Amino acid sequence: MSGNIPGLATDAVLKESIPVPDNFEEVKGIDYSNPESRNSKAKFLVNSMKTMGFQASSVSKACDIINEMRSWRGKNISELEDHEKKGEFDDEGFQKTTIFMGFTSNLISSGLRDTLRYLVQHKMVSAIVSTAGGIEEDLIKCLAPTYMGEFSLPGKDLRDKGMNRIGNLIVPNDNYCKFEEWIVPILDTMLEEQEQFAKEKGADCLDNDVPFWTPSRMIDRFGKEINDESSVLYWAHKNKIPIFCPAITDGSIGDMLFFHTFKASPKQIRLDIVQDIRRINSLSMEASKAGMLILGGGLIKHHICNACLMRNGADYAVFINTGQEFDGSDAGARPDEAVSWGKIKAEAKSVKVYTDVTIVWPLIVAATFASDESDFDEKK
Amino acid sequence: MSGNIPGLATDAVLKESIPVPDNFEEVKGIDYSNPESRNSKAKFLVNSMKTMGFQASSVSKACDIINEMRSWRGKNISELEDHEKKGEFDDEGFQKTTIFMGFTSNLISSGLRDTLRYLVQHKMVSAIVSTAGGIEEDLIKCLAPTYMGEFSLPGKDLRDKGMNRIGNLIVPNDNYCKFEEWIVPILDTMLEEQEQFAKEKGADCLDNDVPFWTPSRMIDRFGKEINDESSVLYWAHKNKIPIFCPAITDGSIGDMLFFHTFKASPKQIRLDIVQDIRRINSLSMEASKAGMLILGGGLIKHHICNACLMRNGADYAVFINTGQEFDGSDAGARPDEAVSWGKIKAEAKSVKVYTDVTIVWPLIVAATFASDESDFDEKK
Amino acid sequence: MSGNIPGLATDAVLKESIPVPDNFEEVKGIDYSNPESRNSKAKFLVNSMKTMGFQASSVSKACDIINEMRSWRGKNISELEDHEKKGEFDDEGFQKTTIFMGFTSNLISSGLRDTLRYLVQHKMVSAIVSTAGGIEEDLIKCLAPTYMGEFSLPGKDLRDKGMNRIGNLIVPNDNYCKFEEWIVPILDTMLEEQEQFAKEKGADCLDNDVPFWTPSRMIDRFGKEINDESSVLYWAHKNKIPIFCPAITDGSIGDMLFFHTFKASPKQIRLDIVQDIRRINSLSMEASKAGMLILGGGLIKHHICNACLMRNGADYAVFINTGQEFDGSDAGARPDEAVSWGKIKAEAKSVKVYTDVTIVWPLIVAATFASDESDFDEKK
Amino acid sequence: MSGNIPGLATDAVLKESIPVPDNFEEVKGIDYSNPESRNSKAKFLVNSMKTMGFQASSVSKACDIINEMRSWRGKNISELEDHEKKGEFDDEGFQKTTIFMGFTSNLISSGLRDTLRYLVQHKMVSAIVSTAGGIEEDLIKCLAPTYMGEFSLPGKDLRDKGMNRIGNLIVPNDNYCKFEEWIVPILDTMLEEQEQFAKEKGADCLDNDVPFWTPSRMIDRFGKEINDESSVLYWAHKNKIPIFCPAITDGSIGDMLFFHTFKASPKQIRLDIVQDIRRINSLSMEASKAGMLILGGGLIKHHICNACLMRNGADYAVFINTGQEFDGSDAGARPDEAVSWGKIKAEAKSVKVYTDVTIVWPLIVAATFASDESDFDEKK
Repeated sequence: MSGNIPGLATDAVLKESIPVPDNFEEVKGIDYSNPESRNSKAKFLVNSMKTMGFQASSVSKACDIINEMRSWRGKNISELEDHEKKGEFDDEGFQKTTIFMGFTSNLISSGLRDTLRYLVQHKMVSAIVSTAGGIEEDLIKCLAPTYMGEFSLPGKDLRDKGMNRIGNLIVPNDNYCKFEEWIVPILDTMLEEQEQFAKEKGADCLDNDVPFWTPSRMIDRFGKEINDESSVLYWAHKNKIPIFCPAITDGSIGDMLFFHTFKASPKQIRLDIVQDIRRINSLSMEASKAGMLILGGGLIKHHICNACLMRNGADYAVFINTGQEFDGSDAGARPDEAVSWGKIKAEAKSVKVYTDVTIVWPLIVAATFASDESDFDEKK
Repeated sequence: MSGNIPGLATDAVLKESIPVPDNFEEVKGIDYSNPESRNSKAKFLVNSMKTMGFQASSVSKACDIINEMRSWRGKNISELEDHEKKGEFDDEGFQKTTIFMGFTSNLISSGLRDTLRYLVQHKMVSAIVSTAGGIEEDLIKCLAPTYMGEFSLPGKDLRDKGMNRIGNLIVPNDNYCKFEEWIVPILDTMLEEQEQFAKEKGADCLDNDVPFWTPSRMIDRFGKEINDESSVLYWAHKNKIPIFCPAITDGSIGDMLFFHTFKASPKQIRLDIVQDIRRINSLSMEASKAGMLILGGGLIKHHICNACLMRNGADYAVFINTGQEFDGSDAGARPDEAVSWGKIKAEAKSVKVYTDVTIVWPLIVAATFASDESDFDEKK
Repeated sequence: MSGNIPGLATDAVLKESIPVPDNFEEVKGIDYSNPESRNSKAKFLVNSMKTMGFQASSVSKACDIINEMRSWRGKNISELEDHEKKGEFDDEGFQKTTIFMGFTSNLISSGLRDTLRYLVQHKMVSAIVSTAGGIEEDLIKCLAPTYMGEFSLPGKDLRDKGMNRIGNLIVPNDNYCKFEEWIVPILDTMLEEQEQFAKEKGADCLDNDVPFWTPSRMIDRFGKEINDESSVLYWAHKNKIPIFCPAITDGSIGDMLFFHTFKASPKQIRLDIVQDIRRINSLSMEASKAGMLILGGGLIKHHICNACLMRNGADYAVFINTGQEFDGSDAGARPDEAVSWGKIKAEAKSVKVYTDVTIVWPLIVAATFASDESDFDEKK
Repeated sequence: MSGNIPGLATDAVLKESIPVPDNFEEVKGIDYSNPESRNSKAKFLVNSMKTMGFQASSVSKACDIINEMRSWRGKNISELEDHEKKGEFDDEGFQKTTIFMGFTSNLISSGLRDTLRYLVQHKMVSAIVSTAGGIEEDLIKCLAPTYMGEFSLPGKDLRDKGMNRIGNLIVPNDNYCKFEEWIVPILDTMLEEQEQFAKEKGADCLDNDVPFWTPSRMIDRFGKEINDESSVLYWAHKNKIPIFCPAITDGSIGDMLFFHTFKASPKQIRLDIVQDIRRINSLSMEASKAGMLILGGGLIKHHICNACLMRNGADYAVFINTGQEFDGSDAGARPDEAVSWGKIKAEAKSVKVYTDVTIVWPLIVAATFASDESDFDEKK
């Protein structure tokens, strides 16, 4: 082999680049010469992550989008025509963003429940979508705790002991027995109420304006009945924040409703999902601006995105989950896929953070929704 | 450093192992000295994968479990008491496995729809659970095609053109306009029928025994109306295979139902999900043996598992999806988590294959459900 | 709520799409009316997957790219100037593609080893990159088998028994003891040879043209010594296919070399990695066309890509692994990231298949490298 | 259907559980009634995550393990026999943990470089393993910046502009041209030094005790030459922390070495990897306790684990990466797999956090290595 450096290789390796555009932002990390870097606060950390790249940057961008969706203000209600007086308003009467938050069942099983409850308690979100477990585990935790476990605990041993595993968490099956005791009288009352209006309305009992049971109405009732300040549902009821759960039968509540059909036969509670799709879609259409906080994937993600199609797209979107796009799942789809459907506006601010929600949501909330140290007293 | 080999290290590195137990199976792969290895058939390939390890072995195990759940036979119906005459029977009257198949919406969007339809057409499954897209995309494909695209196509351009992206697939929005034209008259008729029985029954119109609209009943009607042999729903209707979809409002059908509530107001179609949970749970309890084929994650996985809790666990379970357990999601949970809940029996045969379903389901079906070359004629 | 369908929503939902371009390809799956669909052959299956979408399409595209890289032919050697007579040629003297194949260690531990060996045995690849385990496990399997295990086997029990786990595989530690017995005499000889040329050359013993030990030269020696037709290394030696492994010390071979430094002290085998980077880069520069088959991620992926930068990009690239791009890893990078670096040509044919390699490589090979049923005899 | 609740189902659903063991820990999250929850500090956050479950708990456990490995102290050096005076000692002469930190190349490209440098600057780790990019990008960043980009930027456009993409980061190719200018004179000097000792030693120039170039020695030289306080390599040189990189030719340094073989021919720098395996393994054997911090997967993970086999296992292990075990990769293997190999002790404290490192490492460091607010001044 000769002593000449091969030109083909040097041309490829040492190819010149164009001048770096002025608007390029340098990658840099935490400045450890700053005393604030020690045991740093959430906002310092998140701000430092902005120029770190990879998912650190995405976390920082998620915080920016959340801050923007929370701080947006439109016209004052006094300036609006009557038919425009809809959507969310702040205390001074200015239009603000309608925020749809979706979370999967497992997040309520986890300690994130306290963070989710904090957001609902302080009216920081406008509407919620969850799956069945996200409803029932919130209630059950008011009756008995969930415990820490391990991902590797063998299923047979656990079943023998009546211990149910959710990832690295354990829920004793007695919790579900307690839940049954709690819910059956409520279901009885719900059935009575249904019968009552059926008797009153007769053949018209299926009309639009009848207070027919829907998942969101049932959840609101549960929130009222549980009457426990640790509960997401309690505060949603208090603060009139609707919780949607079209497949509410897919879990323990479904088991209880199933048993109840035998107990109540030939009567049966009916849960209508058409009225609820009208309700969530209407919230989307009425919103001045719409923001999405999607924690997890599957139904809760698609349902909020689909509702936002009714307004030709959300204005802000934060997705956090572990789904990947390569399998064509909606769970794994990037925000840009939702843009193609008109579920997110082309000009919207959006980001997807690829991670387990529990890792990052406490930090994000500490740097956004729960960032203001001065107003602690009034938040109590 | 001295010339002596360090004993600490050699003891650790050269630690002796116990004798290899007799039942240990050697890892080995394809025997390329066998002419069958060339352009090999599905069964040869899958059999060779059994001892390959990693997910190759899991694919092979999935085939074994499918073959076992399909071939199991119990008593003849003539030997059974009347109250035992439930569940599935083969043509000679022997008990067989009730097979619950769940698939996510995206699989119907993909070319797997033909494979799923094949299974339904030939009565190879007993009940189905899907999400809204899994219902409506099957119908829409009878009206207009879905097309190949790219994961990287920009959302804004697509929206401008009215082209919706699902992973690397494209659905023109006109398809949904055609779907609206098709479905509105059917919804009108469904509402009429609902009004009819409400008039007849009056206050009793909510009772158990009323043919109230449920997702599964609506889907069956759609299958009848579409009347197209390429459709999963068509064959499900023909073969009386129920399709469950508790959140059927979460997609285009929901959009259409939403619009219909305005058109029909104050009337409104009601879709009850309580009756459907009773229906799927009953199928589980009546089954002689229960098998699960879970293609994807989320609702469709949880719903079938939950139904199988009613019988204290499925006997066979095949999970195929890309979910991981580390985030505590049900989507990512291993079969052993379902064992802890009593959703899969401790002694059941189960496997999870970690992959996009489209990669592996065609091969698995070719090696199991569609493996018999001799009986092609009668299958037509 | 009024009876008028909201225009905002209908405009968004029923947005018209542009006419479907003529070149759009319909999504469709397997045609089960075709008898070939029963227990179907690999090529039928892969061809049917082309229009299925998601990763099924990617598998089919991978096969197309492999077929194209294998069938490409350039000029005949008789037409070339002397300095152009480099790269790979077929038996008739026509230029063909230089194929770089990379695979991670675990694939040799798995049953895929037989498939990888088949490719090397029949000279279907031109050069290989692997990691240390990919070298030593091939040798060790000639001495004692690897066994099937389970992902969930507890580590402590296994260590007590001297059983090492690789995913769902088990390697008894005695295998490594046997490996030590096999390798020590070879290392002794290698050291002698090194001393010999050092004595001969004196101060010039570090020059370019000295047969200094490098990972690829050591691997070639091992391939010769193992003398076993089941071995990848054996056939690589036989067929003069270089195997590169810059970090060959990172595993059992490294352990043995470490021990050997004590035994041989003050002498020591030296393994130079500079000569090997010159060797692999030269192969890339000399190639008429370059193709990449990347099975897994990490070093083996980056090393082949980096070598292809020396020719301003590969012409064909197939990546198969489970890495995701969101963490900014090279393992997870899409081919398009390599295009930005000049490691893959902008006009190259490339695809990434997102899956465990063991699921899909047997099928891909059956449909490409091992697809020709007619030429079985001569392949023996 | 009768009015009796089915016993099979109620028995399964309402199965009693054993009493909850006393040592069970309740799942709970952040206490938002605590003012510290607002814009919370890293330690508060991480402590609150301990009982959240899923990966939040794993992050908290990682911090506990790090604190434990950092605070462990053994005997005082004055109590030890001469042959025991090895491993790491604190300023008072007490034995402390030898901490091996591995990180992948992309983390140096990201803003995490500042965090990694902080750890090296303050001697918080004992030895480092990285891949080629982890070495060269640290040096290159001293010459010119890396910039923020997007994952979706098209490769062809970037190549035309000479802009290289690493996930969502951009490195102008001119940076590599600057790197070439910087490194060539250093390589020239290194070659001169090599020639010098070869001349002096003659045939003995390959012996153990010759300062032959190895990756770790070359990296140390680079750290000295770069002489820049922003650099990881600079501080590693200053603080005598070895950096191992067996495959250092796999990147831009390899390109430069490749070119240099032509320039210097017939002379050639030789880089020996056998001496380096002896060096890292010796560090492991000499350690009083060994801890592993593995940031990413692939070579850097395996190399540290393998070194720890030489001591029959690490005492502490923290893995953070996105790898999954299902494909049998070492990258995705859980710590328990390393236990089976003797690379982690059975009684060691270990955890794997499943996430992109950039999301979580800044928080972890803020809550551990950089948690002490009081000692800021002395840390400057």
